[in-house]
Amino acid sequence: MAEGASQDLRLAAAFVSDAQYNRNIPFRTSPEAVRLYYLYNHWIMRTVTYFFIFLNLSLAVFEEPAVYPLPFLVTSLIEVLCLLVFFGRLTHFAKVTLHNVFWKDTKNVCIVVAILLSLTDLAIYGVLRMYNMRSIRWSRIVRPIFLINFAESRQIRRAFRSIRNTLPEITYVFLLFMFSLLMFSLMALKLFGERNLQTAEGLPYFKNYLEIVFDLYVLVTTANSPDVMMPAFDFSSWYALFFIAFVIVNTYIFMSLFLAVVYNNYKKHLKNEIRKLAYMKHRKMIEAFNLLKEEEGAQFVVREARWKQLVKLVAPDISNSHRELLLCISDNEQKGFIDKKSFVQLADLLNIQVITLKIRSHPLGQWMPRVYKSAVSRFLRSMVRHRGFVWTYDVIILINAIFIALDEETPYISYAEWVFLALYIIEILLKVYTYEPRAFFGKNQFWNWFDTLIIFAALTATVLNTTLKSTTKYNSQQILDIVFILRVLRLIRIVDSIQRFRVIMNTLINIVPTMLTFGGLTLVVYCVFAIIGMELFHGKIQFFPASSNVPHALECGNPALKDSLFARGKYCKNNFNNFASSFIVLMELTVVNQWHVFANGFANVTVQPAKLYFIAFHIVMVIIIVKDELQHEQLLDNMESAEHDLEGEGGTKPQSKGLVFKIASKRYRTVDALLQRMFEAEIPLEDEDPSFEEILNLSPTTAVPSNLTLENTA
Amino acid sequence: MAEGASQDLRLAAAFVSDAQYNRNIPFRTSPEAVRLYYLYNHWIMRTVTYFFIFLNLSLAVFEEPAVYPLPFLVTSLIEVLCLLVFFGRLTHFAKVTLHNVFWKDTKNVCIVVAILLSLTDLAIYGVLRMYNMRSIRWSRIVRPIFLINFAESRQIRRAFRSIRNTLPEITYVFLLFMFSLLMFSLMALKLFGERNLQTAEGLPYFKNYLEIVFDLYVLVTTANSPDVMMPAFDFSSWYALFFIAFVIVNTYIFMSLFLAVVYNNYKKHLKNEIRKLAYMKHRKMIEAFNLLKEEEGAQFVVREARWKQLVKLVAPDISNSHRELLLCISDNEQKGFIDKKSFVQLADLLNIQVITLKIRSHPLGQWMPRVYKSAVSRFLRSMVRHRGFVWTYDVIILINAIFIALDEETPYISYAEWVFLALYIIEILLKVYTYEPRAFFGKNQFWNWFDTLIIFAALTATVLNTTLKSTTKYNSQQILDIVFILRVLRLIRIVDSIQRFRVIMNTLINIVPTMLTFGGLTLVVYCVFAIIGMELFHGKIQFFPASSNVPHALECGNPALKDSLFARGKYCKNNFNNFASSFIVLMELTVVNQWHVFANGFANVTVQPAKLYFIAFHIVMVIIIVKDELQHEQLLDNMESAEHDLEGEGGTKPQSKGLVFKIASKRYRTVDALLQRMFEAEIPLEDEDPSFEEILNLSPTTAVPSNLTLENTA
Repeated sequence: MAEGASQDLRLAAAFVSDAQYNRNIPFRTSPEAVRLYYLYNHWIMRTVTYFFIFLNLSLAVFEEPAVYPLPFLVTSLIEVLCLLVFFGRLTHFAKVTLHNVFWKDTKNVCIVVAILLSLTDLAIYGVLRMYNMRSIRWSRIVRPIFLINFAESRQIRRAFRSIRNTLPEITYVFLLFMFSLLMFSLMALKLFGERNLQTAEGLPYFKNYLEIVFDLYVLVTTANSPDVMMPAFDFSSWYALFFIAFVIVNTYIFMSLFLAVVYNNYKKHLKNEIRKLAYMKHRKMIEAFNLLKEEEGAQFVVREARWKQLVKLVAPDISNSHRELLLCISDNEQKGFIDKKSFVQLADLLNIQVITLKIRSHPLGQWMPRVYKSAVSRFLRSMVRHRGFVWTYDVIILINAIFIALDEETPYISYAEWVFLALYIIEILLKVYTYEPRAFFGKNQFWNWFDTLIIFAALTATVLNTTLKSTTKYNSQQILDIVFILRVLRLIRIVDSIQRFRVIMNTLINIVPTMLTFGGLTLVVYCVFAIIGMELFHGKIQFFPASSNVPHALECGNPALKDSLFARGKYCKNNFNNFASSFIVLMELTVVNQWHVFANGFANVTVQPAKLYFIAFHIVMVIIIVKDELQHEQLLDNMESAEHDLEGEGGTKPQSKGLVFKIASKRYRTVDALLQRMFEAEIPLEDEDPSFEEILNLSPTTAVPSNLTLENTA
Repeated sequence: MAEGASQDLRLAAAFVSDAQYNRNIPFRTSPEAVRLYYLYNHWIMRTVTYFFIFLNLSLAVFEEPAVYPLPFLVTSLIEVLCLLVFFGRLTHFAKVTLHNVFWKDTKNVCIVVAILLSLTDLAIYGVLRMYNMRSIRWSRIVRPIFLINFAESRQIRRAFRSIRNTLPEITYVFLLFMFSLLMFSLMALKLFGERNLQTAEGLPYFKNYLEIVFDLYVLVTTANSPDVMMPAFDFSSWYALFFIAFVIVNTYIFMSLFLAVVYNNYKKHLKNEIRKLAYMKHRKMIEAFNLLKEEEGAQFVVREARWKQLVKLVAPDISNSHRELLLCISDNEQKGFIDKKSFVQLADLLNIQVITLKIRSHPLGQWMPRVYKSAVSRFLRSMVRHRGFVWTYDVIILINAIFIALDEETPYISYAEWVFLALYIIEILLKVYTYEPRAFFGKNQFWNWFDTLIIFAALTATVLNTTLKSTTKYNSQQILDIVFILRVLRLIRIVDSIQRFRVIMNTLINIVPTMLTFGGLTLVVYCVFAIIGMELFHGKIQFFPASSNVPHALECGNPALKDSLFARGKYCKNNFNNFASSFIVLMELTVVNQWHVFANGFANVTVQPAKLYFIAFHIVMVIIIVKDELQHEQLLDNMESAEHDLEGEGGTKPQSKGLVFKIASKRYRTVDALLQRMFEAEIPLEDEDPSFEEILNLSPTTAVPSNLTLENTA
């Protein structure tokens, strides 16, 4: 019985934990499977998986064309190791979940296929290599699949799904846009084609229909404005109207239209997704409840002791006082048990970030109370707490900034550097002396950590630099650069001391989660395009230092670039010769400006259709960036701005010994939780949730189950 | 009594009309004032005012530096005339409204001051001119004030107010951004300043702090990416990280932050504004009700006859059947009177666009029924109604497109043009033969109108062109250009025949109102900047045709531009030498690309601080564009996409004689109405509205009147 009860508890805890983190893995409920499931979700296992995913992705740095070349044997062994880890992880997952579910899930099938493809490709490439035949490592393109398809990358997958859902409507807008582009190009051909005009580079202007289409597409991205207009404008001022109309229609109106269509669609699908998630969560909490319930009068409840065991198992790292607080909320009438309704809320309660402020007396006050409480010490502490202390240091930082701007060749100024470092260290010591150290370096004291780390890093780097200089007479450029940067970063502290700026920084921190999703998406797209780019353009364009004697050094080693804007802009180092360079080029293409120069340059050294690569990349990035912006706003919509009271003085104003809770009710740990809050009010608490299959098949267009009234409250 | 009743009716109608159009003019209620008020709101009076506002603005085209020079006497007389009209309009307004209200309103004070300033400046300039002294017409800058401050430009004023409200928060973000920019510039100075690097133009790279700040500001707008990075990148690949970090922080993160702050603030203030408007509307409807109410049992009501008189007065142009429909809704139990609650809704009911489809038999069917109903005729009509008819014409349009793309020098092709024109005209005739002409050319049949107009314009232009060619042997370039454009525009019709594209076009039409506001804002900003720009840069840069022998023709007549990117890009025609040129330059600056080339060019020919003009313009346009985008989304949020059933086949499928209503319940005539819908649910229907002063003083932070529960339903 005790065995069974403890197994039930573990199972219930697994359900609650899944509900808390919105994991939707239909695991088997046998004690053996549950133990495996715990292991599967353990942070070490997850970290290891991510480590190997990124290792696998970063192999491109060491494979030909390599930034740091490694022998083929080494990279292929590492790749096999990665694939083995992925296979192991997948096998683990297969043991946890039900077999029919496992094979129905495209995620898993994708991973299996990707592993097989990678192995096959590796084998073929290896064999061909032995016979000295070159072939393409085409399977490198599938590597990002591992990043997307492992169960943990839910946000990235959702973003991809959301893009896929919008695709049909985007396609129609795009077709309309293409139609408009082709029409304007036709007009341009008719209006300007026979004028025998020349561009600033002396090339024929608007003669060839396909080139006009490309030029006008570039104008939509504004990258060749106003150059593309100038020849016609010089010919007659009236022709400016053509280009103005073109930009208004194709850049502004179509962009608005595109946003509008994506926005409408995004909202519709997002709501559906979140509804699904909320149902799943509710379902899991009910299952956990059913495992632990006992009869109490007319209803089933969970008793307090059992509930505490559960919470200890689900969230072992929260403090006793925090747990008591949760209990108070769940059992607010102190009846000794928790009813179903309160129990279901547990998953959300656990997601609320509670900052436990333990107000403790200063350890120095305990070790040597006489000294710590003396008049001098008290004066010192009150001085540090005074606003003037912050202001003084703001002034010091400003003076520091001026010194940095001045030339540091003067010995006087390089001495001043030591004075500033000393002043900053004194500041930190004084603060630690005044405030309780554990509170000062608390989890949420971001700025305190930042200050201390920057200053100690600066100190280390400066000491290292001076030592190197005095002992070896050698001035390491790298270290000097780092010292410079750290010295300037120190100035950021001034932001910390102005309340308004803190608020803005908090808004920023709120945007971070969506930025990470955006980062993941971008990484996947970059990897794919970098690998394709390297296959297409590798070695076509090369960089030679200015002093080089190589023929065509100024044309990036390729005579096809003679007189091109690419060579004239000295863009030779922007090439696809290795993974790192490719990433930098893609970054520049993301910024959009001058992308047509890249497209023309790489098309010149290969074939004209190579431009399609650049156009495709542009379209993909536009879609991703628009998505990202929309999610920001959607999230912001549901965030309150009154959060700044959370951070700030919390750890630095201890009045008396005791315990203070701060509940950040508006603050959620995960994007999921925040999104769910939007739709939670619409989901009634009923026993008759839709069945698992019904939930999975929910779509924005299907009718909602009859007992639910989901209306647009916006 | 009858006199009094009719006066009451007129007064009530004025209230209802104000409520319908959200006019908030506290007019006097004496019969005399009400009559004046009707005149004041008459569309002719409004159109005249707008005409003179735009005439006044367009004076800049004819004043020195002029596009089309007119004598000073003419322009000054026109300006005086405009000012007189404005003064008259204002006097009219003063007679309508209460005196103390009139002078409290900053709008009116602004106009009075602007009139006085303009007159003073004109007088001074005129006198100085007589003595041949040049002075600056500084008052031209105040002209846009008339556009903003006349009571009709509510949307533009709201946009300005909304920007003003956001300004404090934007300022803080901007300060933080400036701080970040200055810090990065300091780092750049330290990292790259001593490397003796050179830009692609051979200039020193990152040597001067102020120049670095400007270059990095330009990089934030991405206009000089990747050029600004290349020298450092060529020196060491690692330095690319500096620029990537810079772009991520200052372009993407700060832009997100800026959007987030503006969005939060915008929502807050918008809600408050709309709440005010809704209260006002409700108040006015109650006043109208109180004027017309009669006792009926325990309650006050408005009797049907009186109600009909009122609606006839308020909306004289709606059909009898539409009015009956409104009555049915207001008095849905057919009691013969309308209670208060239903009466108040009238303003909204009037705003709902009802499309009355009168299904009438074809006039030909009445005039010569034998012919029209013969087998041949019926076959013809069923053919036209068949889908194949549309498809056939789509194919014809495509063939036409190919013919246009081909060279029209071949006589065969220029004959084909006549064939196509004939085919299109036959199509229109067939359609008019099949469908009822009045329905075919109904108010909402946008596409039918568009088709017909384009084709007849093309016909006229082609005939004109051919006549000119055959009679004078002279080929007018302008007419040829117009023929080309019309010929291509004709192809747009293909959009019309695909349902999906129609839907997208409807979304587009929904965005139009906010675009108009955006257009108004942009016009104001352009006018102000164009006038300043002309004063600052007039004549400094000149355009000479390629064949010119003027010294420094390639440097735009100014040796200071030698070797500059401005001259090299052949940008000489982009100058501030007249109002039209200035507008084109500002348009190019709005597009952002290459704006730094303009800034540097104009700074070279004047002084370096001239760059501030371009930076200021960039900042202003960013704020305006962000605002515009936010409003789009806010509106889209509250629009449903299921509107496509509205347009389309409506007028083209008459089954039988009769009357069909289509109520576009989701479609509002005004932006105001649409915005109000968002908050309407939150405003309860109580007699005790807040008083007029309370409404005006509502602010997002003040507590809401106790009987109201305004919660965020989003």
